Amino acid sequence: MSESVQLTQTVQKGGCAAKIAATELRAILAQVRFPAKDHNVLIDGANFDDAGIYQVSNEIALVQTLDFFTPIVDSPKLFGAVAAANALSDVYAMGGEPKTAMAILAFPLGTLRQSVIADVLQGACDQLQEVGVNLLGGHSIDDETLKFGLSVTGYVHPQKIWSNAGAKAGDHLILTKALGTGTCMAALKRQAKSEEQLAEAIRSMLLLNRTQDLWEKDNASFVHAATDITGFGLLGHSQQMAKASRVRMRFHGPKIPLFALTRECLQNGFLTKAHRSNSEYTSGQVQNHWQDPLGQLALVDPQTSGGLLLSVDANKAQDVLQDLRKRFAQAEIIGEALASDPQKPLIEVTE
Amino acid sequence: MSESVQLTQTVQKGGCAAKIAATELRAILAQVRFPAKDHNVLIDGANFDDAGIYQVSNEIALVQTLDFFTPIVDSPKLFGAVAAANALSDVYAMGGEPKTAMAILAFPLGTLRQSVIADVLQGACDQLQEVGVNLLGGHSIDDETLKFGLSVTGYVHPQKIWSNAGAKAGDHLILTKALGTGTCMAALKRQAKSEEQLAEAIRSMLLLNRTQDLWEKDNASFVHAATDITGFGLLGHSQQMAKASRVRMRFHGPKIPLFALTRECLQNGFLTKAHRSNSEYTSGQVQNHWQDPLGQLALVDPQTSGGLLLSVDANKAQDVLQDLRKRFAQAEIIGEALASDPQKPLIEVTE
Repeated sequence: MSESVQLTQTVQKGGCAAKIAATELRAILAQVRFPAKDHNVLIDGANFDDAGIYQVSNEIALVQTLDFFTPIVDSPKLFGAVAAANALSDVYAMGGEPKTAMAILAFPLGTLRQSVIADVLQGACDQLQEVGVNLLGGHSIDDETLKFGLSVTGYVHPQKIWSNAGAKAGDHLILTKALGTGTCMAALKRQAKSEEQLAEAIRSMLLLNRTQDLWEKDNASFVHAATDITGFGLLGHSQQMAKASRVRMRFHGPKIPLFALTRECLQNGFLTKAHRSNSEYTSGQVQNHWQDPLGQLALVDPQTSGGLLLSVDANKAQDVLQDLRKRFAQAEIIGEALASDPQKPLIEVTE
Repeated sequence: MSESVQLTQTVQKGGCAAKIAATELRAILAQVRFPAKDHNVLIDGANFDDAGIYQVSNEIALVQTLDFFTPIVDSPKLFGAVAAANALSDVYAMGGEPKTAMAILAFPLGTLRQSVIADVLQGACDQLQEVGVNLLGGHSIDDETLKFGLSVTGYVHPQKIWSNAGAKAGDHLILTKALGTGTCMAALKRQAKSEEQLAEAIRSMLLLNRTQDLWEKDNASFVHAATDITGFGLLGHSQQMAKASRVRMRFHGPKIPLFALTRECLQNGFLTKAHRSNSEYTSGQVQNHWQDPLGQLALVDPQTSGGLLLSVDANKAQDVLQDLRKRFAQAEIIGEALASDPQKPLIEVTE
């Protein structure tokens, strides 16, 4: 059976680390004349990284997203489940509830057993079943290396959208999951660690970013902005939120949760191309006062199925945190949003 | 600049010919426990080939589809435009109007210039602009070979869906485009023909399957069933429609439109893996009385951005045909639907 397949050994680059780097992508997209948008487009994801939103009625807007990647773990079913969680996450990051999904599958028929396809799909289907998402179809091609993901459509009330543009000076910043999937999965790929040893990071990637069922009273209304942390790392996605919201951000380095093995994996040099490209992408906008080179590296670690970064009313941040901890045990207040200041970098990281 | 790139020389398999074969796919999907579906799912595309439909309100249902493939033509902009037309086609085949799209891009950063990405996207964006579709975002990865496509969402009135299950015995069958993109693009890939020489097939792949603006009076209401002809060829997709509609079909071989170069390309052996797998997929269900080996081969030619097959009230077939010819000059009545008969094959092809 497929138990013996080690999917990470079949590809060069795994997970969100295989994304085209943000700076390269922006330069390319700047050359394209995009089609005009009609008045129902509420959020335009033309930066190729977030979900877009399209209004259908006064009560319903569609949150749409698309994500796929090469194997980041060895077990086929686990890979399908992580890929599904990662794709669904973009909808949750907008405050939406996913409704439908379509599968994206590229598969090397010549080198992998067909049972691997069934296992990958089963991992994804189990995640969809858990949150009541309908699989409407998909597309599959024969390809050199395995890739899998989902295109997901959810509903959100047009007045209750979490965008990354709503952070206000004074807000507290909450991160729901620990950092380190990039370096941990690089260690797996180089066979320095097993899936068993990396269970903490893998459990985290499987955890859906659903929060709608966690809120007491009207606590959700105190979330001013949200984004999910994926391939561009905490600093990359924070920078995008700070820009979109016209605020600065200050993070307290030691407060930022890391997996137990994140530092060890970074220390041992388990890095991806994205560690470098994310550093380049953010270097001009980040002032680092945190004397902790491994910690700093974790801030640009590319996350697969990473947590949400929420910008929350400071007076309600503890209440929001308590609600989130029902599912996200490692959720932490890691910093705050500050008034914008063109003389200062968008992000500072303190001791 | 990118004019000198010959994209078809960068990949092994082009276009819909790279699809995983229908028989293989069905065997694999039979092993998967799919998630439960809620009552809003009107059409379930779990066979991975057609669009799915999800009802939002009494007036609006979402038609969702996803399609991507490797280069089938050499020019980057042309490739993007064909891929977009091909993806939009599934929505039109359901009677829907596409509203939003997300891009799927896998790109070999190490071997192709970045301007190729911009050109591919521009080709797609120009098609979306023409029919007022909003590009809401997408996902890009660094990969061994170029792949591009779209996930598309459209609207359709829940009472006006064209499914492939509505064909009635006595209906006439109309095909809107000529056949032969598979063999013609195989000739391009092997550099036996140029894009200029294959202009007819390329123009056909660029032509959007939109029909909503063509109808006089209530002629659209006489279309009982529709499907678009893509990777499984005319016989593969006809067989699916016949099964879903519980009818048989008879095609008149000489009436089926082919591109001027289709026979020559087939004669010269420009075939793909899909010619064989489509033959295998349909062989048990097709009785062929047409003594024309090249014509027979064209019936399993894998189409990229192929035409619509429409099953139409016999009394109105000429009116429907006249409307369709405003855009689709080669549209023809190629056969008829017959009462089902378990003793006979689903499809027969006559002289």
